[in-house]
Amino acid sequence: MSGNETKDGYSAVDPSRRKFLGKTAMAGLAGTGAVLGLTACGSSQQPGGKLATAASAAAPASSSGEHPEYDVPPGKLDTYYLISSGGHSGEVRILGCPSGRTIKRVPVFNIDPMSGWGITNESRAIIGTRPDGQLKYWTGDTHHVHGSYKDGTYDGKYFWVNDKLNARVARIKGDTFDVDKIIDLPNVQGHHGLFPDKRDPVDASINYTTRVFAGAEFHIPLPNDGRDENSPEKYGCLFSCIDAESMEVRWQCRIDGNMDLVATTYDGKLAASNQYNTEGGVHYEDMMSAEQDSCVFFNIARIEHAVAGGKFTTIGDSKVPVVDGRKDANADPKTALTCYVPVPKNPHGVNASPDGKYFVCSGKLSPTCSVIEIDLVHKWFDGELAKPRDAVVAEPNVGLGPLHTAFDGRGNAYTTLFLDSKIVKWNVDAAIAQFKGNTQSNVIIHTIDVHYQPGHGYTSMGETKEPDGKFFNSGNKFSKDRFLPVGPLHVETEQLIDITGEQMKLIHDHSAAPEPHDAIIVRADIIKTRQIYDLNEFPNAVKSKEESTIERNGKNVHIRLMSQAPAYSMREFTVKKGDIVTITVTNHDKVEDLTHGFGIPKYNINFCINPQETKSVTFVADKPGVFWCYCTHFCHALHLEMRSRLIVEA
Amino acid sequence: MSGNETKDGYSAVDPSRRKFLGKTAMAGLAGTGAVLGLTACGSSQQPGGKLATAASAAAPASSSGEHPEYDVPPGKLDTYYLISSGGHSGEVRILGCPSGRTIKRVPVFNIDPMSGWGITNESRAIIGTRPDGQLKYWTGDTHHVHGSYKDGTYDGKYFWVNDKLNARVARIKGDTFDVDKIIDLPNVQGHHGLFPDKRDPVDASINYTTRVFAGAEFHIPLPNDGRDENSPEKYGCLFSCIDAESMEVRWQCRIDGNMDLVATTYDGKLAASNQYNTEGGVHYEDMMSAEQDSCVFFNIARIEHAVAGGKFTTIGDSKVPVVDGRKDANADPKTALTCYVPVPKNPHGVNASPDGKYFVCSGKLSPTCSVIEIDLVHKWFDGELAKPRDAVVAEPNVGLGPLHTAFDGRGNAYTTLFLDSKIVKWNVDAAIAQFKGNTQSNVIIHTIDVHYQPGHGYTSMGETKEPDGKFFNSGNKFSKDRFLPVGPLHVETEQLIDITGEQMKLIHDHSAAPEPHDAIIVRADIIKTRQIYDLNEFPNAVKSKEESTIERNGKNVHIRLMSQAPAYSMREFTVKKGDIVTITVTNHDKVEDLTHGFGIPKYNINFCINPQETKSVTFVADKPGVFWCYCTHFCHALHLEMRSRLIVEA
Repeated sequence: MSGNETKDGYSAVDPSRRKFLGKTAMAGLAGTGAVLGLTACGSSQQPGGKLATAASAAAPASSSGEHPEYDVPPGKLDTYYLISSGGHSGEVRILGCPSGRTIKRVPVFNIDPMSGWGITNESRAIIGTRPDGQLKYWTGDTHHVHGSYKDGTYDGKYFWVNDKLNARVARIKGDTFDVDKIIDLPNVQGHHGLFPDKRDPVDASINYTTRVFAGAEFHIPLPNDGRDENSPEKYGCLFSCIDAESMEVRWQCRIDGNMDLVATTYDGKLAASNQYNTEGGVHYEDMMSAEQDSCVFFNIARIEHAVAGGKFTTIGDSKVPVVDGRKDANADPKTALTCYVPVPKNPHGVNASPDGKYFVCSGKLSPTCSVIEIDLVHKWFDGELAKPRDAVVAEPNVGLGPLHTAFDGRGNAYTTLFLDSKIVKWNVDAAIAQFKGNTQSNVIIHTIDVHYQPGHGYTSMGETKEPDGKFFNSGNKFSKDRFLPVGPLHVETEQLIDITGEQMKLIHDHSAAPEPHDAIIVRADIIKTRQIYDLNEFPNAVKSKEESTIERNGKNVHIRLMSQAPAYSMREFTVKKGDIVTITVTNHDKVEDLTHGFGIPKYNINFCINPQETKSVTFVADKPGVFWCYCTHFCHALHLEMRSRLIVEA
Repeated sequence: MSGNETKDGYSAVDPSRRKFLGKTAMAGLAGTGAVLGLTACGSSQQPGGKLATAASAAAPASSSGEHPEYDVPPGKLDTYYLISSGGHSGEVRILGCPSGRTIKRVPVFNIDPMSGWGITNESRAIIGTRPDGQLKYWTGDTHHVHGSYKDGTYDGKYFWVNDKLNARVARIKGDTFDVDKIIDLPNVQGHHGLFPDKRDPVDASINYTTRVFAGAEFHIPLPNDGRDENSPEKYGCLFSCIDAESMEVRWQCRIDGNMDLVATTYDGKLAASNQYNTEGGVHYEDMMSAEQDSCVFFNIARIEHAVAGGKFTTIGDSKVPVVDGRKDANADPKTALTCYVPVPKNPHGVNASPDGKYFVCSGKLSPTCSVIEIDLVHKWFDGELAKPRDAVVAEPNVGLGPLHTAFDGRGNAYTTLFLDSKIVKWNVDAAIAQFKGNTQSNVIIHTIDVHYQPGHGYTSMGETKEPDGKFFNSGNKFSKDRFLPVGPLHVETEQLIDITGEQMKLIHDHSAAPEPHDAIIVRADIIKTRQIYDLNEFPNAVKSKEESTIERNGKNVHIRLMSQAPAYSMREFTVKKGDIVTITVTNHDKVEDLTHGFGIPKYNINFCINPQETKSVTFVADKPGVFWCYCTHFCHALHLEMRSRLIVEA
């Protein structure tokens, strides 16, 4: 242990810098101007010379675009998929890496007229609707996207993403990169962190993902139905476990404080979330009043044993079992469901090292990263460690505003420094040695400026047991002068960094529509996509010309169409004003990439149908007239001529 | 004139290739399989050796990424804005050129939770709502985006874009790249082509854009209220003239046939639209039965004189004056409002040469481009040209499936060949010489493969009097094997080509979310953006702490908030279940790029507020409980702590 410990044992390194930081942050809470220093960059009016210097630096010498080895020239393919959240755009994005080209926008919580997401009956059933037929939501806020694991690495089957805005979890299929399931988390607000497990906690032969864990950031009355609104001390946050296949919520665990990110161990036994606001404050100055918060560990086997043994309650209308993981209820390590490992206050991000040994909590308001040894957490649960803080084996001073940490598989960690606008490369073993008292230990290996103010950072395959130490991507929160201006809001910047050498090398800046948060970088060979659907997988497919019919049942009319370039199977279809019309379209083209669209003017309907796919829409024919249903997705030399008339009789 | 003329004078060049093409296209109309040859590429099963060979070619030797001079390395800026439509995504996109990086998505006809487009009161007023409060539409289909002109070049003030799906026109402000106006075109369906004028037709001192012209593609009953539904011979299409400032529809002109693209002359006197389906067919084989269609020219001064003289009708509820521009009503050139210049059937695209002399109609189903001399069209209107077809001064055979033509300012044209999957560079003067009978004229200069099947193509500043002949961008309709696969629907490909030399050089492939159509490439110095709003331009701004209040008027509650990192001006606000709540937020941060978000969990509300901007939302507080309104757009080290409680009392 280093000296300078507080009563609960966390190490208050470099108090002078922490004091400066605390002061600056607090100024913003009281006043109006000084706080700008935390976010402004490239400005000479900022407090803190280091801040201003780092952020206003011009492009570093290494970033001159002299890296043709990273070019992806015409006819060549990227070597990685970069699967990224899209923040409050509500979507997920697939990029090629290293090119940085966006190769798919996956609509998730948003409405996408291109694909028809939120418009077709099939997608509306996945998203959910209200009694009046409107979509339940068309907003969302995706932050963290993670893939399913097998044998400690990605298997390419599923990807999950959170919706912080409406407390949902969506699952994306890895073969088509489409969402197949969206669920609500009961009694949760501000679902933020999300991570799949990697192995079963009890049956080690199940060495693949069967659970997804979700942390809740906003503490609310439980249930949140109007009770206890003005009694924040009664508010609570739940950590949720979701079945990876059925997408049902298996259980929830109530904890102290607000949860941020989530990480899981490779042995499947533990999940963890870094926490802030263990104070339970509802005002920001309260949220950061305590000198420490925690990384809370969940003992999965014990929680599930408790649930199986009926030791749970339920909240409100929800039938999901809820166990009590609060600190006071888990004082005895040998029976505890949770372990609160103290770390400096308001940490941001917890990341698992690919060797399976450590979790690293990044300090945010502290210039440190806390390295927690998993085996020592296990020891605490076994009653063999004096106090949770003893599981912290290093706490290096890495720079100002550390948010997230990634790994290269060679023992090095890369932490984003939000305030310094830098990435710092540091050695984990050296940090442990330093923490043990070796003052000669060379912890910091290299730092590199990024532009500007990085949030998440992640490495190629760095969240698996197959880290390859090739690329680090810095997701920067401000771009300012990095791209041509487009009005008040700049696009965000992703900066790709070569981490193969001792020193990091900036490769290039990519733009990213606001606002990406986290991503994973997956080796291209892991993803196995399907290029054409199978007609038979759609129960409502229109399989032949004979099945292309108009069926009327009272006011319900079902028009069953086929599309084949450059025509739909019926040239006109007549309904009556007031009819409830369902149009089903099956795309009979079999050529890869030969997608058709189907748009109906003035009826607000548009969607596309991929080769051999079937989709449907339902609407009330409330406007009489002729409406040319046309192919909205370029398909053929006669694409413009591909249309049929919907005739609505007055 | 060349020989081989048909009765109306159009030149049927290379009849054997045209016959092949006609056959292939027709096969698709009758059968199911053969038509695939028109769209498939990289497949050996296609009919037509040339097609298959061209499309399945590997990346050409010139495309090896050996062009570091086109790199935009970290810290450097692009030299052009590429302003692109987004097809049935409903949006417009701003890209940097030559990097190909998307630097803004402009939400236009779609809903965008990131910015709050379609969610805030301000954007809903621009888009329009139905009596039940829902948005009128949240789908759209943007094809053509064009900018306002001054002195024959872009002035960067406005950009307009069409909505083909719901027959609308949107205007984007060039200083903020936000939409400020959306209008419906009355009695129009399938609004496709759009182009601003460049000069006033009468007052030559008004040498800037004051009108925007819009072509309608789908002919419909006039009015389309249930009458004449089964009498296609009574259907009609209107060409619309919109006031560039007020965005009111000034007049409409009824024509024969379906309009596709629109072009305008530099002298301001003429606009034109290429037409297909002059047959008035409602089935595709009818639409392409005639051997020729037209490029129809509109004599703007005469039309406006007719309108001023009361020589118009109105249609249905619309008060917009409609003049008759049909062929039969305009037989006398000296009084004609329109001039129908015959070109081979189903042309696609009409483009103005930057010297102001020619319009080029690309043949689509004919392997030709028709060069129309503007002065000769003027002569026809003056009664000095025998027949409209005599205005065609060249009709070179350029290859299979010519769709759109762009110019380099050095006398060369670049035409996209959809079926050949090539760009062909040809010389306009050489083509005119050839048409006059010079069989030695070297028309075709170079062709280059693109991947695959290009739609629009456009050059840097090529639609202005300042063409610089640097870049040509090919918007390809299929990408197939050019990027990592992401499931059945591939991303589209944009390919940037260097046109500075005699031969074209492919620079790189860029991905583009489906599905971009047309774009313009604007020199960076022309665009003058604003980086911070002015508080005073928002009448509902919350200007000071004193103005940050809660006002109740019966069930209507107005919560007036300020945002300043990392806090909103009120920490909690309490309303009652059933209240109609308006929340107005003014962002008091003044630092460039310091945008805040405002999301309300479970209330489907999210938007962002740029520096010094004000936005508002209105909703019914129908769910009791505590709802943490939080900043959804990363703003500060304490961004996660930036939230206030909406308390809805039961």
